[in-house]
Amino acid sequence: MKEKQDGITVKKADDFSEWYTQAVIKSEFVDYTSVSGGLAFRPDGYFAWEAIQRATDALFKEAGIQNVYFPMFIPERLLAKEKEHVEGFNPEVAWVTHTGDSKLDERLAVRPTSETIMYDSYSKWVRSWRDLPMRYNQWNSVVRWEFKHPTPLLRSREFLWNEGHTAFATREEADAERDVILGIYQRILREFLALPGVVGRKTDYEKFAGAEATFSIEHMLPDGKVVQGPDFHSDGQKFAHAFEIKFIDRSGKTEYAYQNTFAISTRELGVMVGVHGDDRGLVMPPRIARVQVVIVPIYNSETMESVLKEAEVLRKRLEGKFRVIVDSRDVYSPGWKFNEWELRGVPIRMELGARELAERKVVLARRDTGEKIGVALGEADAVVGRMLDEIGESMYKRAADFLAKHTHKVKDYAALKDVVEKGAGFAQAHWCGSHDCEAKIKEETGAKASNMPLDAQRGAEGGRCVYCGKPAAHVVNFARSY
Amino acid sequence: MKEKQDGITVKKADDFSEWYTQAVIKSEFVDYTSVSGGLAFRPDGYFAWEAIQRATDALFKEAGIQNVYFPMFIPERLLAKEKEHVEGFNPEVAWVTHTGDSKLDERLAVRPTSETIMYDSYSKWVRSWRDLPMRYNQWNSVVRWEFKHPTPLLRSREFLWNEGHTAFATREEADAERDVILGIYQRILREFLALPGVVGRKTDYEKFAGAEATFSIEHMLPDGKVVQGPDFHSDGQKFAHAFEIKFIDRSGKTEYAYQNTFAISTRELGVMVGVHGDDRGLVMPPRIARVQVVIVPIYNSETMESVLKEAEVLRKRLEGKFRVIVDSRDVYSPGWKFNEWELRGVPIRMELGARELAERKVVLARRDTGEKIGVALGEADAVVGRMLDEIGESMYKRAADFLAKHTHKVKDYAALKDVVEKGAGFAQAHWCGSHDCEAKIKEETGAKASNMPLDAQRGAEGGRCVYCGKPAAHVVNFARSY
Repeated sequence: MKEKQDGITVKKADDFSEWYTQAVIKSEFVDYTSVSGGLAFRPDGYFAWEAIQRATDALFKEAGIQNVYFPMFIPERLLAKEKEHVEGFNPEVAWVTHTGDSKLDERLAVRPTSETIMYDSYSKWVRSWRDLPMRYNQWNSVVRWEFKHPTPLLRSREFLWNEGHTAFATREEADAERDVILGIYQRILREFLALPGVVGRKTDYEKFAGAEATFSIEHMLPDGKVVQGPDFHSDGQKFAHAFEIKFIDRSGKTEYAYQNTFAISTRELGVMVGVHGDDRGLVMPPRIARVQVVIVPIYNSETMESVLKEAEVLRKRLEGKFRVIVDSRDVYSPGWKFNEWELRGVPIRMELGARELAERKVVLARRDTGEKIGVALGEADAVVGRMLDEIGESMYKRAADFLAKHTHKVKDYAALKDVVEKGAGFAQAHWCGSHDCEAKIKEETGAKASNMPLDAQRGAEGGRCVYCGKPAAHVVNFARSY
Repeated sequence: MKEKQDGITVKKADDFSEWYTQAVIKSEFVDYTSVSGGLAFRPDGYFAWEAIQRATDALFKEAGIQNVYFPMFIPERLLAKEKEHVEGFNPEVAWVTHTGDSKLDERLAVRPTSETIMYDSYSKWVRSWRDLPMRYNQWNSVVRWEFKHPTPLLRSREFLWNEGHTAFATREEADAERDVILGIYQRILREFLALPGVVGRKTDYEKFAGAEATFSIEHMLPDGKVVQGPDFHSDGQKFAHAFEIKFIDRSGKTEYAYQNTFAISTRELGVMVGVHGDDRGLVMPPRIARVQVVIVPIYNSETMESVLKEAEVLRKRLEGKFRVIVDSRDVYSPGWKFNEWELRGVPIRMELGARELAERKVVLARRDTGEKIGVALGEADAVVGRMLDEIGESMYKRAADFLAKHTHKVKDYAALKDVVEKGAGFAQAHWCGSHDCEAKIKEETGAKASNMPLDAQRGAEGGRCVYCGKPAAHVVNFARSY
């Protein structure tokens, strides 16, 4: 029997960054490839993304959004049409210059995002107020060739995402879409990824290149650093002016459309691994786990036949309701199998041996807490259903508690610096609204303005900027970030 | 009221190529973009692809295939590893040479197909016979920068597809996958696209670059030209040798894996439009139509309220079972609406006016045949269900009849030339198996060997090559192609 296990060799608390890399790679969730910063999503990793993608897509459709698909190449002159947009993306663009042996007349950008190629078409398609709203979305992959050290999922040079691009006749209608979309993203984060997040508005300096305002959901990793999650950009009429997205309104006047953009990406899978994993490996939220239940039969040569037979009966009872497998590989010991499925993060392990069989029961082990309970075989399916729900809820709750505990309201700059230096999470502080103060804080502490939490803004009144002491305009979460 | 309709200005029988382009563009199925040969899939077009994609994906999963995702870039040295493969694709590759302002050390190919980037990983992942079979698939888009005149969907420089890439321990297991996959594709073609096709093996000259054998399903368009549909490649151990995909077999020996590759692409949507459409526009197979039923209310100022109200009641009765909308835009006349929905190919139109209301009935018009029937309002949902099934079946049958009528068994070369010159479809002929004869036929007539239909091969025995008169080895379908 093979007992050696290629497990994680560092503790999450000791070296988060090394732990993280080992966790995503050794669990066979994703793998490196010969392309620097380009990942292979293995079956467990892609399954998780597909689950998120399909659930989000269903909610988008319910909300009236339709899917489309646009080319992955964008001619250079189109990309350059909106000035702030091109300045934001140019340093990261991968350029196609040749096809076969021929040089192209005009370079083609591999899409870093698709505003420019899509809005070029919108300008043809939108003629009258009757053509609006135009609420389109596409699921694809984009390339941003950043020069910082790539980290699997969290900072990949190619990633998978949705990009929603909508156009409305009025600013009011455009603005009304924000809560719908952020609501969908929050629901997906909670129900599928068991992830909390801070909903807020980005500062003008940190907003999306080309947007009027950016709203984001920010996540915190165990090392106290922040990762930006799903976002929603109010573009106003900026792109509409650049791309001539005009229409005849009800009164016969020519108007420019109001637009929004929104996205959720595979980066969420990195956040999920980082937030939920432990020293033994991944801890998968049940709804995105490719395998939800693994039955590990425990037998000797005498009991083998009856135990394997009963394991198969149990599997058949569970399948259809849950994603369940029997690990009957006879070259590995039960202990080896326990380790492997823990590394992969399977939510429930069922142990079935001769002793359990004699008592007509099975042992259920929860991946998230390690808790083990014995259950009558006849009740296994009902208990599994409840337990999977509990695991998801309890993972979310633990993560939400962590986030709350690592959000520190700071009264002065010394306290802000202290929180940031300790890697203790968010330093929530008053801010006057000037980019100077924001820039100084970043320069002196390394902490960026993550976002301005919507539910903390009432506290801005009467406060004073943590840096300059002038009257505060906003409450900001400062933290170091990925 | 606006009566002018931007319909198709040529007849399908008079100028198929011009008709085709007007049909796919004017119906708002797809559109051109600023990228030459790159298409925008509009909601109707992408819906159809998504329906095909999800149905195919479900059948793949039932068959035990798992989804993965690999980078869209392939380093030049990887692409070059399998000699025939790189020679086949090099002339069409889009090359990324720069990112931001920096020149890359090594050029990156935008994937024309993913064998080389995937098999580089397979060689790491496959160690023992226990790791096999490895049956992975991905849904993505690929780029082949052909220099011929692009035709929307039928010849696009970027297209969407699935690419399945599997590895097995033995040739027998690998070969057994062929009928499963071709069976899945035939089922999707029939049930979702209402398309027949000829299943056969490609000649060695026409097979995929790098494969040992290629099997394809070939479609015929109304102009008698052939389009290759889904295909399946038996790669043997060719890529396994090039990429060192080796494993320890049950007896402890090192062996190379046997591999297959298979794909279905958005080109099918072009075939669907070409085969089923008519002078009024698209005719959508019901299962891939974004709108299956359109209710057109017919009213004057007096009857408007009651008719619109009843149309809404009818819509509610049908929704949930069918994809149904009411076209209540009051700026257009009923006739204008009829034209628009016919152009888009909506399978069933329901006409509801005061006269129908008085009789508690509704008129159903079939898009495929133009047939109209009156139905009691209370029976509308049952009749719609049956009618949608009938439309799909009858579209398939008509296309299969066309294919059968345009397959001509030819006894001699003069007859072959006659069929090809008339654009009358397949010239099915005996062939000795030498590339010389195949090449001469192509040179002299413009007809390629489409494939060697599996169900016609018994007829090869005793026959003589249509070109050289030597004993025949195969029966081949010759035709001009897209």
